[in-house]
Amino acid sequence: MKTLYFKDLNQYYGKEVTLEGFIDNVRDLQYVQFVVLRDTTGKIQVTIEKNEENQQLNEIVSHLTVESTIKVTGLLQQNEKVKLNQMEVLPSEIVVTSKCLDELPINYKDSASAAIDTRLNYRFLDLRSQKNLLMFKVQTCLVGAMREFVISKGFLEIHTPKLIGVASESGAEVFELKYFDRLAYLAQSPQFYKQMAIASGFDKVFEVAPVFRAENSNSYRHATEFTSFDIEFSYINSFQDVMSFEEDLLIAGITKVKEEYGDEIKEVFGVDVVVPTKPFPRIKLEELYQELEKKFGFSMDPLDVGDMNSESEKLASKYIKEKYGHEFVFITDYSAKKRAFYHMRKDGIPQGYDLIWKGCEITTGAQREHRYELLKEQALEKGLGEDIKFYLEFFKYGCPPHGGFAIGIDRITMLLLETGSIKETMFIFRGPNRLEP
Amino acid sequence: MKTLYFKDLNQYYGKEVTLEGFIDNVRDLQYVQFVVLRDTTGKIQVTIEKNEENQQLNEIVSHLTVESTIKVTGLLQQNEKVKLNQMEVLPSEIVVTSKCLDELPINYKDSASAAIDTRLNYRFLDLRSQKNLLMFKVQTCLVGAMREFVISKGFLEIHTPKLIGVASESGAEVFELKYFDRLAYLAQSPQFYKQMAIASGFDKVFEVAPVFRAENSNSYRHATEFTSFDIEFSYINSFQDVMSFEEDLLIAGITKVKEEYGDEIKEVFGVDVVVPTKPFPRIKLEELYQELEKKFGFSMDPLDVGDMNSESEKLASKYIKEKYGHEFVFITDYSAKKRAFYHMRKDGIPQGYDLIWKGCEITTGAQREHRYELLKEQALEKGLGEDIKFYLEFFKYGCPPHGGFAIGIDRITMLLLETGSIKETMFIFRGPNRLEP
Repeated sequence: MKTLYFKDLNQYYGKEVTLEGFIDNVRDLQYVQFVVLRDTTGKIQVTIEKNEENQQLNEIVSHLTVESTIKVTGLLQQNEKVKLNQMEVLPSEIVVTSKCLDELPINYKDSASAAIDTRLNYRFLDLRSQKNLLMFKVQTCLVGAMREFVISKGFLEIHTPKLIGVASESGAEVFELKYFDRLAYLAQSPQFYKQMAIASGFDKVFEVAPVFRAENSNSYRHATEFTSFDIEFSYINSFQDVMSFEEDLLIAGITKVKEEYGDEIKEVFGVDVVVPTKPFPRIKLEELYQELEKKFGFSMDPLDVGDMNSESEKLASKYIKEKYGHEFVFITDYSAKKRAFYHMRKDGIPQGYDLIWKGCEITTGAQREHRYELLKEQALEKGLGEDIKFYLEFFKYGCPPHGGFAIGIDRITMLLLETGSIKETMFIFRGPNRLEP
Repeated sequence: MKTLYFKDLNQYYGKEVTLEGFIDNVRDLQYVQFVVLRDTTGKIQVTIEKNEENQQLNEIVSHLTVESTIKVTGLLQQNEKVKLNQMEVLPSEIVVTSKCLDELPINYKDSASAAIDTRLNYRFLDLRSQKNLLMFKVQTCLVGAMREFVISKGFLEIHTPKLIGVASESGAEVFELKYFDRLAYLAQSPQFYKQMAIASGFDKVFEVAPVFRAENSNSYRHATEFTSFDIEFSYINSFQDVMSFEEDLLIAGITKVKEEYGDEIKEVFGVDVVVPTKPFPRIKLEELYQELEKKFGFSMDPLDVGDMNSESEKLASKYIKEKYGHEFVFITDYSAKKRAFYHMRKDGIPQGYDLIWKGCEITTGAQREHRYELLKEQALEKGLGEDIKFYLEFFKYGCPPHGGFAIGIDRITMLLLETGSIKETMFIFRGPNRLEP
């Protein structure tokens, strides 16, 4: 395994080093050859004078192709004249470890040089860009910090089944598959199973796993498969506890990202990472409607009344940003008609929220109805019966008051780095028209 | 959210405390009532004398059902006479937060009282046992420590697609589903995509995610869906580097488990957690065959020659345990006919290994063939063509030498705790005959 990374080379001046990486550039001039080598942390110039002593090296370098990988052993020296980090390696040995056999079909260094769908066809090359590499460093950091946070709070990690026996939450938008001599479905969310963990006395649980949505949608923020960071915990007093925990979780994640990558994100994405202050602003849906009407002359599409849509989400963030200087806003008091049957209600009002960040919904959270009879009633009201009978059973034998939420990690990475589209953000995007690569 | 856990109660003697949990037991005697409350960390006795002052409480307690959840506020006091931890709570208030409505269909406290399949039907109750709760604490700890280890080594986390456009590694044993107007398949492993990350210059990657196998197998160690801890990293010199890394990873995980839960595992499962020493024993397949013949008169089924099967795995562990006192063994030099096409070969010998723990295979690892022409040749030899064309493309434009492995986390939890079956170990088991709950 590679142990010496280019960012640490300034500790090795005057020493022999062995370097491995991709060839970022080769220049074969009259009296000298330059190879720029790239790893995940930086670049380094390899300099080979053309002379008798270097004959063998000169021969190797003259055949090198950009994007091949090599292993270089040589003397590292400081050199003020070298533009790239004022250092260079004078090699004694160069071994080609893999050869780039063809011209690259896309120029990954310039994302504007090809349409997104062309770039996605060659995602394995597109990901070589500095931007994309940084994006996955940031996502690893963000999700890692969030996971560390919940583990430090005593949450148990669960791995719920993605293959399920019933179409679950609703018949629509579920992928169906042949499972031996019967049918199975792909879980749209771990909702039922994380609540099962609560009924099993697991107290506090989390899961980071794929979810599947058979939605024929081509928006900037939808995918047929994405990774969900799911949370559920017991013994809450109200959904306020759930919001408060989500604030802490996001603050933990964003703080770590800012510490580790704040400057680099500013440089590469031009985005200021802002650690949100607590509490995040909260507003009731009705009040928000009134404010959006007042400020922007906006009125909700009658079909969406009681709910939000992408336009109102954008305006809500604009309004909140102007009023409170905050990037986040919790919206509460949605219409029961627009919310899932398992949200607890109080005086008919769902005890949950959506969280909007930079104009885009990132979470639905709620206190859940944990009382069997009420839950059954609310399910029937939504026309759900036989399919969720197994789920209702979870609540028959004691189940503490609980709540939770889910965050799509691809979506929050998109918003954090302002990439503009989830296609740009996912390791490999999946949409109605895309199953490749 | 609950902040006071029962294991910490000895810091609160003489204070008023508020406790939440499941009712583990109720005794309503002539002059006194006892309620034993349970949370994820322990149990506590609630004592209510029957008298005029307590009339309301006495009334509530007389209707309590076991496995309901309650919230109790009262004075915590030390009391030598109380068998359970020599402490009790004298309540001033008891609120029933959920009611167990029916008699439990299984006795989860005695796993021998019902067959495994009955218990799986009521997994949400079966998981209430001390054993099962501990199992998921241990798994959270084990996987968390392994993840922490790879993140500390600079690995990037990736989330590869589970919905894929081709049946991939081979046509058999893949779940097929309708994907809008075409077909999709469920990924059997992230193999191709973690290698894609390597070709993208990601250097070192990991993923913890579900994999899907349409195998009609009912063994103690197979499931149609399980969680795989996948590793892939660049710039290796040989598959020895891969084995070495896997040793370090497992040692990191098992060390943490032993520290945090060693005693409890001994008490509840009767198992000694042994942190393995490095290096793990290594043996070539041919040599192992000879040893097994010599020691146990075992000869391999001709159909399996060049490979291992469950019987030889058991004997291999027995032999190694006797010879080296070690629970693990790496077996190398399998037949190329029995290994995946993407394993690198040297003089025809696959540059990979299986790792056996306590008589059961837990990993296949290898250096991968990263050279396009050779890889293509090995694929064709196995009859793989059009389906993996997209994968071969990853290796055309430079890709460093690399290797990796995968560990099924359910399987290693089963072996660590010696539960005897993966059905006992998975949060919810999935097999050919089981899609519920």
